[in-house]
Amino acid sequence: MPQTMDPKTIAFVGLGAMGLGMAQSCLRAGHRVLGLDLNEAAVERLIDMGGETLTPDGAGEAAIFVSVVLNAAQTRDVLYGESGFARHLPKGAVIVSSATISPQNARDNAERAAQLGLLYLDAPISGGAARAAQGELSIMASGSREAFEAAAPALSAMAQSVHDLGREAGAGSAMKAVNQLLAGVHIAAMGEALTLGVSQGLTPERILEVISVSAGTSWMFENRAPRVVEGDYAARSAIDIWPKDLGIVTEIAERAALSTPVAHAALTRFREASSKGLGTLDDSAITQLYAGEAGLPLPGRE
Amino acid sequence: MPQTMDPKTIAFVGLGAMGLGMAQSCLRAGHRVLGLDLNEAAVERLIDMGGETLTPDGAGEAAIFVSVVLNAAQTRDVLYGESGFARHLPKGAVIVSSATISPQNARDNAERAAQLGLLYLDAPISGGAARAAQGELSIMASGSREAFEAAAPALSAMAQSVHDLGREAGAGSAMKAVNQLLAGVHIAAMGEALTLGVSQGLTPERILEVISVSAGTSWMFENRAPRVVEGDYAARSAIDIWPKDLGIVTEIAERAALSTPVAHAALTRFREASSKGLGTLDDSAITQLYAGEAGLPLPGRE
Repeated sequence: MPQTMDPKTIAFVGLGAMGLGMAQSCLRAGHRVLGLDLNEAAVERLIDMGGETLTPDGAGEAAIFVSVVLNAAQTRDVLYGESGFARHLPKGAVIVSSATISPQNARDNAERAAQLGLLYLDAPISGGAARAAQGELSIMASGSREAFEAAAPALSAMAQSVHDLGREAGAGSAMKAVNQLLAGVHIAAMGEALTLGVSQGLTPERILEVISVSAGTSWMFENRAPRVVEGDYAARSAIDIWPKDLGIVTEIAERAALSTPVAHAALTRFREASSKGLGTLDDSAITQLYAGEAGLPLPGRE
Repeated sequence: MPQTMDPKTIAFVGLGAMGLGMAQSCLRAGHRVLGLDLNEAAVERLIDMGGETLTPDGAGEAAIFVSVVLNAAQTRDVLYGESGFARHLPKGAVIVSSATISPQNARDNAERAAQLGLLYLDAPISGGAARAAQGELSIMASGSREAFEAAAPALSAMAQSVHDLGREAGAGSAMKAVNQLLAGVHIAAMGEALTLGVSQGLTPERILEVISVSAGTSWMFENRAPRVVEGDYAARSAIDIWPKDLGIVTEIAERAALSTPVAHAALTRFREASSKGLGTLDDSAITQLYAGEAGLPLPGRE
């Protein structure tokens, strides 16, 4: 623990691939960490790492409350539902909300926090489970200066970079939506491009080599295409994330009277992949959907 | 001129943004360059650089014939049409075909070249006009070893990297199609993402800063989004390229019974942009199409 660090009690709800890694990073930075998840095994893993089970009473000792659950409904429930934790937090505590939700949901959550005398940081995350565990996330955050200051011990433990997007909740979630639009489209486009190339006799390996150094490359292509080349579809980030995240994107766009047909095409593909039973596979397996339809062989496909 | 260089006569048809730069790179490497274009001013520029006008007789002295016209129909015409140059080339000369065409068109062209005792290199290019002029293109090439060897003096003058995709014409054009699928989709996705962000109160500058270091980034995003931030839509690569190139992509895909709905959505947007008079603007101006529809302000839009 750095000597300047004032240890804080940090509560986590949501100990999935991202949440558990973020909690681990906070433990490593010397904080006391309380955690809760519907999956008991995840809580056990937190305890093995030196954390404790979060209880309503325990929440009363938390200076920082990190919500990193699946979606907007769960976030609202965890904070303000019948068994919600917001009422148990001490005045002045900060809620760090990291699930991907719409800007409007973020603004609504922030307003309710203010009514309870709590701070709120709209703080979606990017970077994947490995970087979560290493304390190297990218956080797209917005909120009051007080919220940033109160959240700082957790942010510095969890993140390599914190993008300050202004004083209003909603901006962080808006930037996350922008990122997810691009990331989701890029993964689907990778699936189309790899399958197109294979249909013309190119190998996935050679496509990866050439495209990675060409104008068609993307962060997602370089990150995901190697999994297709290896035929390794163990989920690091599952297909099922995308119907949700691209659903938020298209919902925001529709409210703004903005057409997003490219994002919508990608959304439709991820929904189809989910409905065909690929939802729990790595999102790079969208390539399997394309290849299967065209009857093309890929590494790892029977 | 490097001392090991054996100066060759290299003929160019197509002296547009790419062709003129490629011709310039060959001149700089010490080669004799003959060129032709429907645009007389482009031929004048070549002559100012030290080149000569290409004539049918002159073609008889060319060891290398580079065709870098707009599309497959022009390529066929330049090579094998009524005034085509293939019949004027000396036996053993190599045709370097650099327009974006379908793999089937490349195979057809190669077959006709063989019948005339000519070599053929399927050699689409990537990198943009600036890199063409600097001799730093990326070339996705396939053809016989003899074709590669015969083309080597031009390739080494024009390219930073030559990807050898095998002994059959068609593979180069297939890889180019893969690249264009990704590049075109990424540009359209950039337009959607920037406009989505602006609709939520984010600025293009801030989106560029954050996304460039996030999982949503792409080569195209980092290259094109700065133009949107600056409101500078002078064409470095025009919108009108994309109905053509993505049209080739979807045509190849359909023949392979492969669905490419994401590429198709991007194609539809570029067609719409062309039909709305944006075709000669830089392709980053696809963002204007989105912003215009949603009534959102962008830098450079009235």
